Amino acid sequence: MLTLYYTPGACSRASHLALREAEARFELYNLNFAADEQRSPEYLRINPKGRVPALATPRGVITENPAILAYIAQSHPAARLAPLDDAFEFARMQAFNSYLCATVHVAHAHLRRAERWADDAAARAELRRKAPSVVDACFALMNSEMVGAPWVLGDAFSVADCYLFTLTEWLPAHGLDVGRYPVIAAHHARMRERTAVQETLAAER
Amino acid sequence: MLTLYYTPGACSRASHLALREAEARFELYNLNFAADEQRSPEYLRINPKGRVPALATPRGVITENPAILAYIAQSHPAARLAPLDDAFEFARMQAFNSYLCATVHVAHAHLRRAERWADDAAARAELRRKAPSVVDACFALMNSEMVGAPWVLGDAFSVADCYLFTLTEWLPAHGLDVGRYPVIAAHHARMRERTAVQETLAAER
Repeated sequence: MLTLYYTPGACSRASHLALREAEARFELYNLNFAADEQRSPEYLRINPKGRVPALATPRGVITENPAILAYIAQSHPAARLAPLDDAFEFARMQAFNSYLCATVHVAHAHLRRAERWADDAAARAELRRKAPSVVDACFALMNSEMVGAPWVLGDAFSVADCYLFTLTEWLPAHGLDVGRYPVIAAHHARMRERTAVQETLAAER
Repeated sequence: MLTLYYTPGACSRASHLALREAEARFELYNLNFAADEQRSPEYLRINPKGRVPALATPRGVITENPAILAYIAQSHPAARLAPLDDAFEFARMQAFNSYLCATVHVAHAHLRRAERWADDAAARAELRRKAPSVVDACFALMNSEMVGAPWVLGDAFSVADCYLFTLTEWLPAHGLDVGRYPVIAAHHARMRERTAVQETLAAER
């Protein structure tokens, strides 16, 4: 059995959604971020980084969306959630997921978690002020250069679609409408029709 | 044939080193960052993100260290640079590489590339001021919780070792001595004895 540690609306939604797309057997543990449960001694024993997602498996804990997403795909091959037999296509998927993790999510975090990189109040305000333009540049680049149709990798659905869906949901926090990025807007609408997406959103509500 | 686009001392060194550990056939293209060549129209056709590393393969270009490193390991299986037959161990490696990419490298970038997230001069100065303490926290956590011995994953050498070596080299820029993190200091000394590391450093000199 797998247990996913998550909090509603966070980037852990990507792993949550992939578990449903894989039809995996799993349990959810909803960490109470309002009570700082992600920094409790109990949770730090599970994930010393104090972040979500974390996936507890019979062999140990896996953290970081790109790693969890690839693990779900590899351990549920019948669901065909990654190009497992093609190192180049797998690398394309991992490159996209790395960009979401290290550039797009980080750009977003400067709006919500400016305290990670600045102590000074004025500097934090400047990070929050600039964040929407950095996020906008990321989505414009993904729209023009990186996202295929109907899915991120083209014809084949993959865990990269779960991850893109999750971060696209954050655009309104920056005052950005998804319609600015037509390829991504079409992807988002397509994703919302999927049963696994509807189940994930309902479970996190 | 593979071509690695890099610049000396940048995070592209991780992919460079992995290519040598794999005994891959490859060429190097040294991008002139001083002349902003990474933003030239020619290079943006190779990597629209305008960053390094990028690995040109016969099938197309791969970007982002975690993706390139896994690709090198998967396409050179005889070199045994990743736990390719064990989804859980592979996920452990990918989780470590994701942390380096999205947290440690990002912490470092606030020293060198503050303009990515702030326009205001005082805010940029605050990011630079705080960066060493954020990097220190990352290395302390890796030292106590994440890095095995003799290698990151324990007994087996992997591309994660190439990546950790590369980012450990950045500590002096933050005024941090690697001796603060004894597990990582021992890892770094061990890495410096490897032929591939010596060849990589010589080639980037």
